[in-house]
Amino acid sequence: MVKQERAARTRQALVQAAAEVFAQDGFVVASLTSISRRAGVSNGALHFHFESKQALARAVEDEAAAGLRAVVGSDRPAGGDPLQQLIDATHALMGRLDQDVVVRAGFELCSGTPRREDTVDLRGQWQSWVEEVLKDAEREGVLAEGVSAADASVAVVAATVGFEQLGADDRTWMAAATLVQFWDLLLPRLASAATLSRLVSSGTPVTMTGRT
Amino acid sequence: MVKQERAARTRQALVQAAAEVFAQDGFVVASLTSISRRAGVSNGALHFHFESKQALARAVEDEAAAGLRAVVGSDRPAGGDPLQQLIDATHALMGRLDQDVVVRAGFELCSGTPRREDTVDLRGQWQSWVEEVLKDAEREGVLAEGVSAADASVAVVAATVGFEQLGADDRTWMAAATLVQFWDLLLPRLASAATLSRLVSSGTPVTMTGRT
Repeated sequence: MVKQERAARTRQALVQAAAEVFAQDGFVVASLTSISRRAGVSNGALHFHFESKQALARAVEDEAAAGLRAVVGSDRPAGGDPLQQLIDATHALMGRLDQDVVVRAGFELCSGTPRREDTVDLRGQWQSWVEEVLKDAEREGVLAEGVSAADASVAVVAATVGFEQLGADDRTWMAAATLVQFWDLLLPRLASAATLSRLVSSGTPVTMTGRT
Repeated sequence: MVKQERAARTRQALVQAAAEVFAQDGFVVASLTSISRRAGVSNGALHFHFESKQALARAVEDEAAAGLRAVVGSDRPAGGDPLQQLIDATHALMGRLDQDVVVRAGFELCSGTPRREDTVDLRGQWQSWVEEVLKDAEREGVLAEGVSAADASVAVVAATVGFEQLGADDRTWMAAATLVQFWDLLLPRLASAATLSRLVSSGTPVTMTGRT
């Protein structure tokens, strides 16, 4: 049991170190030696857990995908507004991208050049979720007149991908204050008047847990 | 003279081939051999014009920067609206990103992982220009009440970076129709009522030359 725990800890240290090295050097340049050194384990231990750099990248992506599921996976609370759910999810996603290098590296791994085969399409998953929640908003009549879910999706997906990209160089793009600026600009156009007054552009408290 | 012309043509073919290879393989993976082969010239000819892969990347970035200047460099016509100038520039930029691999590769080169030293910061140049033209809009009173140039910049810069990124995998993100969707959503919130009626979200004709 102790041995299993130690193995799990070593594996986790390797995933974390791989994410740090991928985020800094990119997949192509990242070396297994720099990853094992950063994790404080031997090359042999690395190869015991992961047969290749590709396998390490996949582990990073899988863990990032779990992080994304934590952001978008919960059911909307009864009576909750889909637009508030979307606002909260953007705050939660940017918070994770800002604070969790595994999530950040996961998104970078699936969008870098050259495109890798057999990646987890995190951006595509995020995009699908945004589209679905905005379709809910359309169905429930909380979008402003003349605004379609498709129109809103284009703006929200593009802007959040932009925040993720720009945030890699300058973290203020991922800051809660930047998202609040974005939502304060967009919401009066996006939401019906009755809905708008109920929406909180800074996100609702439960989502903000752990966000500094 | 004929010799000079031939040299200029060879150099241009190398820049074009380099852009294609960088866009496909990324800077790290791209090989000089694949670039010279694609340009249809010898390795010797490549080295006559460019001393290194870095020098080729710099040439691609410089040409992309010239493309960006063509998008944002002209003075606004007398009586022209800064918001229309911004709309037109986004159409022109996406048109170039879509159709000119040198501009596309230039933007990718300055944003890929690992970050390269001594790059031309095309995204930063675009961001600065968007901020300036929106400050003009604020000064000239064409923004809607309660909307600041800073708020508008966040949304426009993030969304256009998102279009550029998403467009690398799926060109519909760079299509004129996608930008029209974005502007039709954003403009009623961004522009004063008097200005809004004059704005054309699909861009004004002069900018659209050459856009398919």
